[in-house]
Amino acid sequence: MSPSATTPPPAPLDRLLWEPLLRAALAEDLGRAGDLTTDAIVPAALTARARLVARKAGRIAGLPMALAVFDLLAPGFTVRVERAEGSDVEAGTTLALISGPARALLTGERTALNLLGHLSGIATATRAAVAATAGTRAQVVCTRKTTLTLRALEKYAVRVGGGRNHRFGLDDAILIKDNHRVIAGGVTAAIERARGYAGHLVKIEVEVESLAQLDAALAAGVDVVMLDNMGLEEMAAAVARVAGRALTEASGGITPDGVAAVAATGVDLISLGWLTHSAPNLDVALDVVLDGEAR
Amino acid sequence: MSPSATTPPPAPLDRLLWEPLLRAALAEDLGRAGDLTTDAIVPAALTARARLVARKAGRIAGLPMALAVFDLLAPGFTVRVERAEGSDVEAGTTLALISGPARALLTGERTALNLLGHLSGIATATRAAVAATAGTRAQVVCTRKTTLTLRALEKYAVRVGGGRNHRFGLDDAILIKDNHRVIAGGVTAAIERARGYAGHLVKIEVEVESLAQLDAALAAGVDVVMLDNMGLEEMAAAVARVAGRALTEASGGITPDGVAAVAATGVDLISLGWLTHSAPNLDVALDVVLDGEAR
Amino acid sequence: MSPSATTPPPAPLDRLLWEPLLRAALAEDLGRAGDLTTDAIVPAALTARARLVARKAGRIAGLPMALAVFDLLAPGFTVRVERAEGSDVEAGTTLALISGPARALLTGERTALNLLGHLSGIATATRAAVAATAGTRAQVVCTRKTTLTLRALEKYAVRVGGGRNHRFGLDDAILIKDNHRVIAGGVTAAIERARGYAGHLVKIEVEVESLAQLDAALAAGVDVVMLDNMGLEEMAAAVARVAGRALTEASGGITPDGVAAVAATGVDLISLGWLTHSAPNLDVALDVVLDGEAR
Amino acid sequence: MSPSATTPPPAPLDRLLWEPLLRAALAEDLGRAGDLTTDAIVPAALTARARLVARKAGRIAGLPMALAVFDLLAPGFTVRVERAEGSDVEAGTTLALISGPARALLTGERTALNLLGHLSGIATATRAAVAATAGTRAQVVCTRKTTLTLRALEKYAVRVGGGRNHRFGLDDAILIKDNHRVIAGGVTAAIERARGYAGHLVKIEVEVESLAQLDAALAAGVDVVMLDNMGLEEMAAAVARVAGRALTEASGGITPDGVAAVAATGVDLISLGWLTHSAPNLDVALDVVLDGEAR
Amino acid sequence: MSPSATTPPPAPLDRLLWEPLLRAALAEDLGRAGDLTTDAIVPAALTARARLVARKAGRIAGLPMALAVFDLLAPGFTVRVERAEGSDVEAGTTLALISGPARALLTGERTALNLLGHLSGIATATRAAVAATAGTRAQVVCTRKTTLTLRALEKYAVRVGGGRNHRFGLDDAILIKDNHRVIAGGVTAAIERARGYAGHLVKIEVEVESLAQLDAALAAGVDVVMLDNMGLEEMAAAVARVAGRALTEASGGITPDGVAAVAATGVDLISLGWLTHSAPNLDVALDVVLDGEAR
Amino acid sequence: MSPSATTPPPAPLDRLLWEPLLRAALAEDLGRAGDLTTDAIVPAALTARARLVARKAGRIAGLPMALAVFDLLAPGFTVRVERAEGSDVEAGTTLALISGPARALLTGERTALNLLGHLSGIATATRAAVAATAGTRAQVVCTRKTTLTLRALEKYAVRVGGGRNHRFGLDDAILIKDNHRVIAGGVTAAIERARGYAGHLVKIEVEVESLAQLDAALAAGVDVVMLDNMGLEEMAAAVARVAGRALTEASGGITPDGVAAVAATGVDLISLGWLTHSAPNLDVALDVVLDGEAR
Repeated sequence: MSPSATTPPPAPLDRLLWEPLLRAALAEDLGRAGDLTTDAIVPAALTARARLVARKAGRIAGLPMALAVFDLLAPGFTVRVERAEGSDVEAGTTLALISGPARALLTGERTALNLLGHLSGIATATRAAVAATAGTRAQVVCTRKTTLTLRALEKYAVRVGGGRNHRFGLDDAILIKDNHRVIAGGVTAAIERARGYAGHLVKIEVEVESLAQLDAALAAGVDVVMLDNMGLEEMAAAVARVAGRALTEASGGITPDGVAAVAATGVDLISLGWLTHSAPNLDVALDVVLDGEAR
Repeated sequence: MSPSATTPPPAPLDRLLWEPLLRAALAEDLGRAGDLTTDAIVPAALTARARLVARKAGRIAGLPMALAVFDLLAPGFTVRVERAEGSDVEAGTTLALISGPARALLTGERTALNLLGHLSGIATATRAAVAATAGTRAQVVCTRKTTLTLRALEKYAVRVGGGRNHRFGLDDAILIKDNHRVIAGGVTAAIERARGYAGHLVKIEVEVESLAQLDAALAAGVDVVMLDNMGLEEMAAAVARVAGRALTEASGGITPDGVAAVAATGVDLISLGWLTHSAPNLDVALDVVLDGEAR
Repeated sequence: MSPSATTPPPAPLDRLLWEPLLRAALAEDLGRAGDLTTDAIVPAALTARARLVARKAGRIAGLPMALAVFDLLAPGFTVRVERAEGSDVEAGTTLALISGPARALLTGERTALNLLGHLSGIATATRAAVAATAGTRAQVVCTRKTTLTLRALEKYAVRVGGGRNHRFGLDDAILIKDNHRVIAGGVTAAIERARGYAGHLVKIEVEVESLAQLDAALAAGVDVVMLDNMGLEEMAAAVARVAGRALTEASGGITPDGVAAVAATGVDLISLGWLTHSAPNLDVALDVVLDGEAR
Repeated sequence: MSPSATTPPPAPLDRLLWEPLLRAALAEDLGRAGDLTTDAIVPAALTARARLVARKAGRIAGLPMALAVFDLLAPGFTVRVERAEGSDVEAGTTLALISGPARALLTGERTALNLLGHLSGIATATRAAVAATAGTRAQVVCTRKTTLTLRALEKYAVRVGGGRNHRFGLDDAILIKDNHRVIAGGVTAAIERARGYAGHLVKIEVEVESLAQLDAALAAGVDVVMLDNMGLEEMAAAVARVAGRALTEASGGITPDGVAAVAATGVDLISLGWLTHSAPNLDVALDVVLDGEAR
Repeated sequence: MSPSATTPPPAPLDRLLWEPLLRAALAEDLGRAGDLTTDAIVPAALTARARLVARKAGRIAGLPMALAVFDLLAPGFTVRVERAEGSDVEAGTTLALISGPARALLTGERTALNLLGHLSGIATATRAAVAATAGTRAQVVCTRKTTLTLRALEKYAVRVGGGRNHRFGLDDAILIKDNHRVIAGGVTAAIERARGYAGHLVKIEVEVESLAQLDAALAAGVDVVMLDNMGLEEMAAAVARVAGRALTEASGGITPDGVAAVAATGVDLISLGWLTHSAPNLDVALDVVLDGEAR
Repeated sequence: MSPSATTPPPAPLDRLLWEPLLRAALAEDLGRAGDLTTDAIVPAALTARARLVARKAGRIAGLPMALAVFDLLAPGFTVRVERAEGSDVEAGTTLALISGPARALLTGERTALNLLGHLSGIATATRAAVAATAGTRAQVVCTRKTTLTLRALEKYAVRVGGGRNHRFGLDDAILIKDNHRVIAGGVTAAIERARGYAGHLVKIEVEVESLAQLDAALAAGVDVVMLDNMGLEEMAAAVARVAGRALTEASGGITPDGVAAVAATGVDLISLGWLTHSAPNLDVALDVVLDGEAR
């Protein structure tokens, strides 16, 4: 069964959450004078068509955002989406056809491709990691190791890739790490303080480094235990000891290559910072076809 | 001769250019409720010390910015920088010692590390590419294939890595690509339009795909010719034909592995989008030492 | 036992989360020309002292923020806090003594008092509601019925008042309401869709209007059931039926007067939109003592 | 004669003055991940109808702004306004019918209602205060005791309620309070300084606490005298003494219950901070009718 | 008597009203890469001294803002102000001495001078216009013909020049122009509508073009009549007819050369858009003295 | 040959580069309460027509931006442009006809005219300077002496006037001034440092004050030499000595009157800060024709 077959349709993301970033990125590229080359050479009235193409195979994420770039630059674009957001495509696949003002097409190209390549890179890496968990109970999740101010989009790309999202920030769940535990004077005390502070809709996860800590966490009734930087055998033993009393998360420097082995330990969740901080770009391009040329 | 020996001291970057991004990134991580875990568990008056450590070898970029994260969260931090920005370090090297409010230290940790890891990843990749050009005239340059709104910082990291910067945006140089050439009706006409539009401090670069285009560009007196997606032999021939009448730039899908061979063709510049869109993170960490513990 | 005795020390709130609002509020009050009256009459070099006073009894929330207003206007203020944030005070209590530039003191007065009066009003109302639950298991929680863009501060004031926070937004927990249930085709299907979408740290609450829905929700394993607009007897019956298998939340037009009766049903949580959308201001004032006057 | 009959049609408010607040409020509610519940459960293509309803009687303010919330989330809404902005409605009245994308309808509901309930609460309270002045010359006016950054909207709601606006900020009129008077060395000197500073379109109001101060203010030719915290008899005497030489404003802790008595003293203006800092919310709701259901 | 002798000390302007503009202007000049020249050439540790000098005679406005530019770029500056804000200076006068980091001094120079030259140009032109009114009752006032987003600063410069401020915007006074009059169906009706709408602290000014309109305006009790584009004789007649019942403002294309003649008509106010839209820059410069050089 | 005949069609400027400024300027004029006069008097449903007119002769710049002001205030405007951007017009020329909501027309008038008058003033002054260079090789260029945050628009107006743009900021070219030279220890060393720092698309200009410096600059291969504050004879001698090895720029306090003489020295470029910091406004107006009136 192919990974894409088991992946739900990609999650939506409200435009209010990403349009300001597109505007800021266009402003960054336009600078103070705009696109000198295009403004100098391309007549204002010229229209053009373009194919948005994946040069390499991968899973596409960011297509609606990339296409919106052109609308922010000029009115009058028409778009035909050929492959839906979240599709797995081969190298050379046309993703969308775009027609409109030639100037805006050339001016917006880099911003659109930078976003589409980055998000598709994350989705492609996520899909591969998800595929490596086939046949196990493990879900692939991302972390807070994201690019500054792009977290909402990068976590969206993880969802498009078939992964799930860990915390979006410091405020939507409790995650008790070693320093918190030491400051509180132990796992139990740390959990008590957390429960006394957070609202009733906040889950609590605790990082554990030993079986004693694991037992204390389970006794205190946490929702998730993070097995941080454990060896595979130790991890499997921890999962067995938990025995369903909490979710188990494997964490700590896991790369795509290691996902399958970790998944085999029976953990519920495998978190990879790698997906959002180190996944390479997917190569995408915009092939412009000037009106009047043969196609 | 080691790469670092030939690298000039890292270029500065005005704080006004990056402090707003740090604030936005902290706001992104704090969300609406702040750091639930830390606020619940860590007493307000507790102070702590921490070591900022490189877990892997690489070139450090972003250290002043990463350290500034903590000052934005709370007053009262003292910092001792152990390794200067732009240093090449081994795995395990302590980069800086930080003392201050324990809450702010834990709350700012992820934002600081996300930035330092990302920029150091770029600098490390750049340094490696620069090393691969040793003994040639080629300079390593970046492109506009950067992360949305992080261009100034990412291009700074390239400079810290010993690379040079290509255009910062659409408005600081003319770069005539194939679509511009076709619209203008040829290389010569495109250059003329560009020269008639841009100011006297704007350089003109032209992408060429054939010797005929190269000759036309040189005849028109361009500053730089971009040899896009050429084979190595063709590139070497083009460099010879240029014979110093313009700078030559190799471009198009070059990865770090290919740099040395490209440099051997005699080109002046090798541009790699890879440096800013696909270089993996450098693993950095913050080891917190709570006051009162033995060290 | 007095309410304040059982209330934990007030929760902190990172300055990054509220300083921009203070700046915007000062800009709103200064307009384009600044404080005409003060600028016309008060010499630039004059200093003054002031007492920040509660004119009515209540619980104080927003004191650190109110005091920060003056620092944003001018350097050189010194402050002595007389009653800590979260204190319960009698009418006429001095909260803090402020010394500094007379102009900034008069210019910032209204902004500081508007914030302090608003947040203390919420904290005071919350404290009263919490007191009404004494001897029961019920916690008082707020809702998303907050003033536009002031949610973080208003929810902070609820915490200072001894209440707990419900969701901070649409994205930190799942809350399945009747429309969601109908669209999904029933409680069970709705919960399944939610679980298939959200990450592992997201809790699920379901609004139920009948015992059948309640049973379905419990069978599906939700974290919290919201008993919306139920009569007291029905509510008590529902609580008994849940029997600890999920948290129970009473909701729907509950005012402070009704809290005690609702708490007596045995519910775990009582949510009141009233706390943040209708709690009256606490009357606070700034009594300025010009230097040179007798005090 | 009913209050509404004498109230002019509600004052307009340029969209530029409030659309940014709506965007900020939606961003506050969407957080980083958007509406988890709706995105998980509601199909993207589903449309729905909804009735915007007043659950309690009151005067409606904020209807155009509340309806604009949905347009900011998604295109494709159609609206039929049933009761105009500024209408006095009974409990249960349908204010508007809205049709459009079901997701955006559910996602925007809370933001729209928070604004509409808040502004209608202010308008309703203002209308009641205005009614209490029937048969007198007194106008009801608001103060600068508003919610941070919502002043333009809250003062608009006061106008919709039939009240008038006092100063919008520190810069659109001179208001000499006791501290200013003391610093200047007396009423006369304070007015002279103010007149020497402000432009010719700036009115001057002076707070007076005694007949001597009143006489000095009148002699100096002020536009308005504020009778601050005076007893009713003293106030009536002051009004008589002014004898039309200036407007008279009653001020200081006046609540809706006290308006009629104050109005009977003959003052021109009665200012109530209560209208904007303590008026309770008007209960409004959005009843969603899914397409396909019977209505 | 010299103009400066009769000018009150310059009006203050809260830093919150102009610091954001300075930040935006520095960001505009720094672009994405910062000050290439200075960063390339000037060592980070070098300090320097500089004299801020007026190259031409004039009245100085904007000195505190210009000096603040350097503090925004780097800590460590010390400043000695030689001539106070609002001083009248001869060509060659040193205004301030600045010591600090050489890089920041060179990087901030242009932004500081652009602001100081612009505001001093306005103040200098205003002072000259004020001088031309010597011996008359006329005050010189500015208009809303200001540079986009610089109104607060430009109107401040007018005050520093000894002028007074007209409206700051559309919302701080009523100004009934010919279109408003026509729409309302006459002067009287227009004034009635205005009085029925605006608060009690809003003054009303009416533009009149005939004696009939003047009489109607006076009968309706306006605060100010604007005599728009009248000849000098007609203006004098209008002033006589008003006879102190309202302030009179001469308006319409008045340049500095015409001020004296207009003032002689007896008007109270002369408004000049010229002051803020056409006053030439005052030539100011920053003479840098590198430490180590002879001075 | 008329200046306009040799001027290329005006350069475009992306709307993203100026729309935020328009919004900020409208917010500045609307303040907190909006257009009191218009809102009080003009019925919401009234429409009107208006002629945008040049009251004085000049070259028009800013027309698309001025017309966009009205669209930002209200939907429903229709515009007929009578004279294209960049046209040279006589006094009294109608530039455009605008029809739409009367309120928005009156409310937006001042913001639209302020921008159009300012930019047309710059374009008109630039055109005159360009005309003074007829028959010479000299191009007229602007400087960085612009109004804070309006640089992109002011430099656009220079282009519309037929001038060319110098640097847009500190980061798009190297300009070595005397302080840089002194710090570096001479022209040659300064150029070397600059070349070692900046990317390959950055040109280098050097300010020279003597023939020795000129020779050093030419020997180092700079792109442009700035002849700063030289007498005409010295300038001509310098131009001759350069002999085409670099571009020559005349700079330093040149006013429009002096352009012809400077151009006669044979320099390639003449830069005038005057164009952007001291060019007077062009008088433009909006003549409103209320529907129903005879025209």
